[in-house]
Amino acid sequence: MLYEINEKALELESRGKKIIKLNVGDPDQSTPHEIIETAYEAMKRGETKYSFAAGEPWLREDLANIHCVSPENVVIMPGSKWAIFLIMYLLMKNGENVVIPSPHWTSYELIAKSVGAEIRFLRTEIDSNWQIDTEKLEELIDKRTRLLILNNPNNPTSKVVDKKALEKIVEIADARGITILSDEVYANISFVKVESILGLSHKHILINSFSKTFGMTGWRIGYTIVQKGLADRLVKLQQITLTNVPVFIQRAASKALENMNELANKMREDYKRRADLASKIFSAARLKFTEPEAPFYFFPKCINLDSEKLALDLLDKGVAITPGTAFGQYREHFRIALTVPDEEIKPALNIICEALE
Amino acid sequence: MLYEINEKALELESRGKKIIKLNVGDPDQSTPHEIIETAYEAMKRGETKYSFAAGEPWLREDLANIHCVSPENVVIMPGSKWAIFLIMYLLMKNGENVVIPSPHWTSYELIAKSVGAEIRFLRTEIDSNWQIDTEKLEELIDKRTRLLILNNPNNPTSKVVDKKALEKIVEIADARGITILSDEVYANISFVKVESILGLSHKHILINSFSKTFGMTGWRIGYTIVQKGLADRLVKLQQITLTNVPVFIQRAASKALENMNELANKMREDYKRRADLASKIFSAARLKFTEPEAPFYFFPKCINLDSEKLALDLLDKGVAITPGTAFGQYREHFRIALTVPDEEIKPALNIICEALE
Repeated sequence: MLYEINEKALELESRGKKIIKLNVGDPDQSTPHEIIETAYEAMKRGETKYSFAAGEPWLREDLANIHCVSPENVVIMPGSKWAIFLIMYLLMKNGENVVIPSPHWTSYELIAKSVGAEIRFLRTEIDSNWQIDTEKLEELIDKRTRLLILNNPNNPTSKVVDKKALEKIVEIADARGITILSDEVYANISFVKVESILGLSHKHILINSFSKTFGMTGWRIGYTIVQKGLADRLVKLQQITLTNVPVFIQRAASKALENMNELANKMREDYKRRADLASKIFSAARLKFTEPEAPFYFFPKCINLDSEKLALDLLDKGVAITPGTAFGQYREHFRIALTVPDEEIKPALNIICEALE
Repeated sequence: MLYEINEKALELESRGKKIIKLNVGDPDQSTPHEIIETAYEAMKRGETKYSFAAGEPWLREDLANIHCVSPENVVIMPGSKWAIFLIMYLLMKNGENVVIPSPHWTSYELIAKSVGAEIRFLRTEIDSNWQIDTEKLEELIDKRTRLLILNNPNNPTSKVVDKKALEKIVEIADARGITILSDEVYANISFVKVESILGLSHKHILINSFSKTFGMTGWRIGYTIVQKGLADRLVKLQQITLTNVPVFIQRAASKALENMNELANKMREDYKRRADLASKIFSAARLKFTEPEAPFYFFPKCINLDSEKLALDLLDKGVAITPGTAFGQYREHFRIALTVPDEEIKPALNIICEALE
């Protein structure tokens, strides 16, 4: 439903209807000027040719320094989805299973299905503050379990896994011989400190992206940090599928890293302000929700809600949201992304609250 | 060996060694100025967001008009390799087989192996002017044959399939219920007229790219034209792997199409001049080769040559070529790509001819 609603919203827009799109985590903030200029200069310098499948050495080195790993562990990719697809494609061809805490980002499920993996959802609940139950996790793991996907901070709940819980999860994974794929694309602009998986162990997989931190969603650039053996296999697969992420886009990403603190702080402030506003409106409407610990998403619950019906109704009223069913068995929930200008948030949330009355 | 030699050449270069790279089909010509400016303007306009997985409607429409199909048949992709990978991934998961005329572009073989397809090579020979033997083709096809890959014009032979042969191949494919995947990435700048697969039948698959025609290899943009059912499946798969090709890159591609005739003519002239020069040098050295009908490649043969050894020796002498073994069982052949400035061609070819004496 995530993609269906979005394609419908885009189509309505292309026919001239005004839609406030709270359905996609696509920051309204423009890509900063200096990043665009850097890409343009690189194009003019002729950085428009085939290059290294693993990514440019200078970008891999910058990222290696940030994450305290070696450049040979870093693979540059056209977005985090791509990384997740290639990793699952390589590791899970033979019907292995993957544990995914739910609610979960739609793509994990669709990718796992596409590559033929078995999915084992680990349900979390709003009433226990979306905590991962490590006993349940232990029960779900068996000999065919290859991966555990952590989305930290989580989309759609905007919940961060606390350090103690993360340590326990890593302990279980290590004891049972499974790999954690930690998707941390919201970590740089999180409202609270996020413990990176690499801070606990280099045996697991980090996925990150430039999309959310720098307003670069449509540039398609992200990266993964993995052990050397898997990195080599990913690079070989990129050689026969992509060749390389455009070098001028890698230059843009490098510029983004150069100004990371300043750009990430600005982004975080924008989203904190919006989150506070949404929190106020939802509280006044007596909606049930957890305070977000990271930008973009709220995932409120209304007893007996059919969120798919709500999403379609709201589209007619000019607001796009995503039904909870896009993230698992969460029909009573819906997700909003605060990725629209401040002045659109209040009217859009009011339309939603009215529709829920 | 194609990718190994290239990574080695890039590495030597990064250590300061001068290498004349005749090993990759990456045009030395810069991306035309107006294409770069168009991308830059689009970035500044904010075309840096998520968008349609199938590609932008205006670009799909332009391409549909060029190929006399409907826009819903066109899917924009980050290069032709990705198109080939996704198509094989969707069609050949269950051990079906694919027929590939050889010599063949390395990636077809590596992709087929990666998705678990069985490969049946259809050998062609320099002595019969690289003609596809349709009787042999018939013999190779069985109930598990799903695809026939045509690379027209061919890499590495620069041979174009003539109309009569193509008609016969389509007739066989239709009679036996297999799909032709026609990779025509060199067609727009071919020295002779190329019959597109779509001119004979809309049941088959066209792959094309902006890379070679417009000096846009590193931009990563190509497209496929397929029947609607497969197009829909490809779009769904792009939603969960890539999201979309950057819109500003699609704008650049659209600008390229606007100026296609002029840009393609210039490109074709450059390569015809170089091909004539190479032909003269190779003839004088009494090398055995076929006159190229399309740009970039020569695939000469020397009796008893070990082309892998030759490639490594030449790398030491500052020239990168690709051994014939990268394209199948063609150890006595080697491939050169005339994708370097004119003034580098003569010295590089002389070094090669000396090494062969």
